This record gives sequence, structure tokens and C-alpha cells, in this order.
Amino acid sequence: MAVVGGSECTADEADAAEEVGRRLAQAGAIVLCGGLTGVMEAVAKGARAGGGLTIGILPGNDPADANRFIDIPLATGMGEMRNALIVRAAGAVIAIGGSYGTLSELALALRIGTPVVGLHDRFAAVVEIPRASDAAAAVELALARAVRSRDRGS
Amino acid sequence: MAVVGGSECTADEADAAEEVGRRLAQAGAIVLCGGLTGVMEAVAKGARAGGGLTIGILPGNDPADANRFIDIPLATGMGEMRNALIVRAAGAVIAIGGSYGTLSELALALRIGTPVVGLHDRFAAVVEIPRASDAAAAVELALARAVRSRDRGS
Amino acid sequence: MAVVGGSECTADEADAAEEVGRRLAQAGAIVLCGGLTGVMEAVAKGARAGGGLTIGILPGNDPADANRFIDIPLATGMGEMRNALIVRAAGAVIAIGGSYGTLSELALALRIGTPVVGLHDRFAAVVEIPRASDAAAAVELALARAVRSRDRGS
Amino acid sequence: MAVVGGSECTADEADAAEEVGRRLAQAGAIVLCGGLTGVMEAVAKGARAGGGLTIGILPGNDPADANRFIDIPLATGMGEMRNALIVRAAGAVIAIGGSYGTLSELALALRIGTPVVGLHDRFAAVVEIPRASDAAAAVELALARAVRSRDRGS
Repeated sequence: MAVVGGSECTADEADAAEEVGRRLAQAGAIVLCGGLTGVMEAVAKGARAGGGLTIGILPGNDPADANRFIDIPLATGMGEMRNALIVRAAGAVIAIGGSYGTLSELALALRIGTPVVGLHDRFAAVVEIPRASDAAAAVELALARAVRSRDRGS
Repeated sequence: MAVVGGSECTADEADAAEEVGRRLAQAGAIVLCGGLTGVMEAVAKGARAGGGLTIGILPGNDPADANRFIDIPLATGMGEMRNALIVRAAGAVIAIGGSYGTLSELALALRIGTPVVGLHDRFAAVVEIPRASDAAAAVELALARAVRSRDRGS
Repeated sequence: MAVVGGSECTADEADAAEEVGRRLAQAGAIVLCGGLTGVMEAVAKGARAGGGLTIGILPGNDPADANRFIDIPLATGMGEMRNALIVRAAGAVIAIGGSYGTLSELALALRIGTPVVGLHDRFAAVVEIPRASDAAAAVELALARAVRSRDRGS
Repeated sequence: MAVVGGSECTADEADAAEEVGRRLAQAGAIVLCGGLTGVMEAVAKGARAGGGLTIGILPGNDPADANRFIDIPLATGMGEMRNALIVRAAGAVIAIGGSYGTLSELALALRIGTPVVGLHDRFAAVVEIPRASDAAAAVELALARAVRSRDRGS
């Protein structure tokens, strides 16, 4: 399950991300994210607190770029192109708050058919996705919709 | 100069794309696009009519997937991840109409600092970019803003 | 730690891969591989037997392509380009037997500075890497040489 | 047609690359390369002298990294992963001299089915490809073997 959001975020977004991470971990899901700061760090912090496993798909070449809650840093050296990898590799995506990077992930996920759930995301005007009012609902929706096997086509 | 837009588009969008292609070619710009149908085909058709060169950055493995107005088909085998490549390789991006693929390109371009100009794009509510009212203005804006050398950072 | 090798392999190569996987797991290392058959399956089987965690970086879009010993399938949709990702993300690479795919991974690893250890690999004539005579030695060498933080440059 | 080789090369290799570039251009082929120095610069210089078009698929983010004989610099930001893109996008590959980067390109090309011709390449011991004794023969062989449409599979 991927959780995407800005490398800078509000305290509310960080709280939401942390709770999403904890709940995903408690449900047995592995948390996939971009591995850096902001929402990515908060969700990994929560997942670790929940006893879960966290994977960070990093834009740069150095695994040490990952935040300290990432168990498995995967340095891609692909820059922002790694956004496409995150939403391709995930069974579903939860988007929290977010800036242009997050919007690119939402749009790519919708383009290739990875289910997306919005939680306080800022893109309601252009992206039609199920939206959750709190972390518990977001996790429940995302787990219910996650794709486990498919050919998502091109 | 990249021109992005849906593989399906309205007649108005196709007309706009064709004129953008012709004007870019007449201005000496190489036209970069996704190489497939819809806006991608219309802009390549226009560029060829204007005596220009067209490059298609294809999602699949087969150069024969390119529309017939593409001079140089580059088959990437990367799927939709190639969207990131298009906006990375371009000096600027003109977005016409568009669906989720186009939105991902806009968002990625803004994320990495490639200038974007909108022409009848549908994302005014969430993406703050200069918008042009017709093809001539879009081409003029995009050429003026194009980046030719830089480190766009990550 | 990545282990690379052919999707078809000899019984000896499979045995070696399985033992490498088991020893890596017992040493606490996460096993990264291409996720498919042959050496990739044998190393994952061994790692699981050793109580370890296995990640498969798949070329296609479908996580179900992964062999049954992969704990975390990451579908990239990048085709063989994912070979570069495997050796970029790993701290070190153990190469077993191998065909052209394996050779590409060795060459890319050497190009970007990821340490490589050969175990019954077939490329002694052109690739200068430390070679181990058995699985135990290969694992020991690879763990000793693994890079944990760096900027490997381009 | 892609021409691959080291960013550092001998004077003989540079001469061969330049002649290959000139002959490809005279035959009407577009020259695709990595866009940097050494063999990449020599082949682009030759292609331009022959009146041809040159494309540089660059590892970094800045089109200004391209050598001065590249007509169309495509900055990928993918690092050495762009090697896979070069051999995927080309109809055939001519390899000259070369180091680990070149070896990775040869191996990837063979893995995905892009025809390869060697010209003074250093990998005869492990890579079975047609080899040419001079630039004229290399160009003739490569043009004859080039793939123009296909599904190369994964």
C-alpha cells in the first residue's frame, strides 16, 4: 500500500499520515512511500509504531537519503520518475494533502488503474476518487480496493 | 518543445494541436510528444505540415506504434513512466485538453521545473500555469519560457 | 543484497543460489532479486527457508508474476530496464551463472560502483570481480563489501 | 541506429566512430548515442560531417551536458539506466571499444533482441555477435540487420 504526500506538510497532515501508517501496519500491510520527509516520514513513523514494514522508493542514488523510519530504502537514481514506480508497484494509493509531486502520483495511478483514496487531498476539483474523512476510513477503503494481481495494461 | 494531451480528444483540441504543431515547426522548434493518437497525432501532423521534425516517445516496445506523422519514434518500453521522460527532455510543455495522463505530465513538469503553458487544458482549478487563449499565443509563450540549459534539481 | 542470475539455470546453480539465499537470510540481509524463475526463484526459496525477507523487482506490470518465495513483489512495468534498478538499489550484488540479463546487471553494477561478487559466473574473461568458490564465501565477501551509504555518482 | 562506446576512447576508436557516424549519415540513418564524450562525441561529429541528424540520450538533467555535435539532446535524469533506453529505442547497435557501460548496452541489447554489431569491441570472449573489421563493414552489417517494427517481448 503506497501513501503519497508532500515532503513538506501541515501538522494535521502529518498526524493523519502517522495514523494511516499505524493502521496499515496493524492490518498487516507493507507501507510503500517516497522515503523522504513530510508525509513520507510521518507515515513511516506510524507504520513502525504499528509494528509494520516500510519501504522507501527514493529519487536519488543514496539509500542514506531515506528518513529514519524506512526499513528498506530503495535508491532508484531516477529522480521524480520514481513517482511512477511507486504507484505502479502499489496495490492501492492513499493521497494526503499534497503538492505537484503528489498530484503526479494521483494522475499516474488513475491512468494505469491503481486504486486511489484521498485523505485531505487538495485535488477534489479535478481528480474523481473516493475520499475519506479520517485515517481509519482511508485505510479501510484502500485495503478494500487494493489490486493484488492484474494486467493493468498500458 | 513537448506538446501533451489525450490520446482521445475533441475536434477543437485536434485543431488547436495541429496549429500549435505547425507554428512550432515554423519557428524552428522540434516537436516532442507521446507519439500516439489524439492530440499527439494532431500536433505531429501540424508540425510535419510546417516542415518540422517530430519525435514520439512511445510507452511500448514497438516503434510501429507511432502515428504516421512521427519522424523519429523512440520506443521506451517504460509504459506510462515515459510521461516523466517527455517533460524532463523538453525545454517547455504545452498542454492541450487532456486526461489523467496529461495531468500527470503537467504535475511532473511543474515538480521538476519545466515551464508549462495551458491551451484549453482542463486543470485550471489545481494547476497554476500561464494559459493561452489560442495556438499562436501558446506557442509564443512556450518559446519565450523554454529552458535550454539548467540543472532542474530533483 | 541483490542476487542475480538466469531465469533458466542448471541444478548446480540453483543449489548455489538457494544456499546463498539461506546464508544471506541467516546473516540478517534482505534478498533483492528479479523475482522470476531460475536463480531468482532458488535464492528466494533459500532466503525464506533461512527466515529472511525477499523482494522481487519485476519487469512487468503484474505482481502475480513473482515466484512463490517472493514476500514483496514490486511490479515496475519497465521491462529489462529494471535490471539497472536492481543493481542501483542493492548494497552489493552476487552473480550466479547467468546469461545476457545477468551480464547486463554485472556491467551496470560495475559502472555505477555497486560491489559485485561472482559465484560460478560465466564472465571471467571480461569482468574483473572477486570470485568465490562456494556460497559461504560469496555471502561473506558480498556482506563485507556492501555499500550502505554513498553518492555513487553517475 | 545507436552507436555505443566509452566516454574515454583511443584515437583509433575515435577514428572508427567518426567514420561510422559519417557513413550512417550518408546512408540516411539517424544516429542515436549517449550524447557525452569519447566514442559518443566522435560518432556525432562524423554524422554531422555526413549531413545527418544526431540524438543524445543523456544520463543527467541538463541538455547542456551534450557534446557540441548533438542536434537533439534528450536529458533523461535516469543516470546509467538510460543505457537500456538507448538500446531499446534503436533499430540496431554498433559497439566500438568500450568499457562497462558499453558492455551493459551490448548485454541489454542482446537480452531484448536488438541486433548488435561489434567494431573493435573488447567483449569477444563473452558476447557472440557479428563483428566487422572496419567502419564500412560495421555500418553495412548494422543497416542490414536493423529492426524497424516488432514486439521484442520482455
